[in-house]
Amino acid sequence: MAVEDFETGAPTASRFRRSVPDGDTVERNVCRDCGFVAYENPKLVVGSVVRAGSAILLCRRAIEPRRGYWTLPAGYLELGETPEDGARREAFEEAGAEIRLHALLAVYSVPRISQVQLIYRAELAGPFAAGPESLEVRLFEPDELPWSELAFPSVEWALEHEQAVRSGTAPAPFVNPAGETGERFRGRPAGFGPAQPPEPA
Amino acid sequence: MAVEDFETGAPTASRFRRSVPDGDTVERNVCRDCGFVAYENPKLVVGSVVRAGSAILLCRRAIEPRRGYWTLPAGYLELGETPEDGARREAFEEAGAEIRLHALLAVYSVPRISQVQLIYRAELAGPFAAGPESLEVRLFEPDELPWSELAFPSVEWALEHEQAVRSGTAPAPFVNPAGETGERFRGRPAGFGPAQPPEPA
Ligand SMILES: [Zn+2]
Ligand SMILES: [Zn+2]
Repeated sequence: MAVEDFETGAPTASRFRRSVPDGDTVERNVCRDCGFVAYENPKLVVGSVVRAGSAILLCRRAIEPRRGYWTLPAGYLELGETPEDGARREAFEEAGAEIRLHALLAVYSVPRISQVQLIYRAELAGPFAAGPESLEVRLFEPDELPWSELAFPSVEWALEHEQAVRSGTAPAPFVNPAGETGERFRGRPAGFGPAQPPEPA
Repeated sequence: MAVEDFETGAPTASRFRRSVPDGDTVERNVCRDCGFVAYENPKLVVGSVVRAGSAILLCRRAIEPRRGYWTLPAGYLELGETPEDGARREAFEEAGAEIRLHALLAVYSVPRISQVQLIYRAELAGPFAAGPESLEVRLFEPDELPWSELAFPSVEWALEHEQAVRSGTAPAPFVNPAGETGERFRGRPAGFGPAQPPEPA
């Protein structure tokens, strides 16, 4: 569970001064005490719009910022996780919910806080219960969604976008070939033939 | 320009020991010297498959790992950047190329090195020239692509996926509404009507 929150954006602590490390060309944060270079990376948030029939599952935030407002189950991707695993983990941590993940719905960015969000479509696969970061978790029918009490603009976008694709086919980019983790070539023969069906895993 | 490379994955430096900070539940890297907690985040790589007519632009790597092998213009997203801006910046840094970015092609992950890649489709919009991280940049016609000399498996996937969508419509997820940076609500009226066309920016 990440205590961090998905809109805090963790500004630079004052222990750091800005300077350009050897071999680099950009100012980084260098520790005043020990010289450690803290490369700051954009943060990757993973989450999902979870359906149960026509209803949508939302969590009421137990933590700042935006305590008391409604959000999607979402949070920071952890080290060593795929985005899909991260989205499932967050649904379990924040809403006690097992979900079946469908395709990627949206890629949003919030450049001011250096954040990129990957939001999936998903389906509730069992019971749910508020986790430690949620005051309450509940299902909302489409006509009762709490539009004026949403925690973040991207939650609003995701609800609108999910509704827009709901009756049609969800557009989605490609993802890793089945069973591949990016560590080996598949030995594709030379030449560039027509697109082939994915290989069995 | 990032000296970092998109497959190194920056393992933990030995200055750190693993321990659980107060208020956290997961082991993090804590500096042995000064106690700084280095939260490690997954790294986000942005890149593009750049077309010039039927040809594809590739860069031969001037740096390890996989020096001398061919790759897409791609690299780490910087702080404060949108993924789209980052993909354009990398094409300019590594291939001296201005590009017109089209939709997102793929979201790949390499969990072993905690990396997520956002790969876009793009079109070359002018001349190109090898940047400091490239030995050579050139255009390959489809039948001459260097399949056996690609730097990373995900380059192979991206070339295959780009070819697969080339003659059809590229599927793509939603992105930020036009002009929105995730910092304000658009004041959507209560209620959940049918999908609406995007509002003018
Ligand atoms: Zn220090
Ligand atoms: Zn230190």
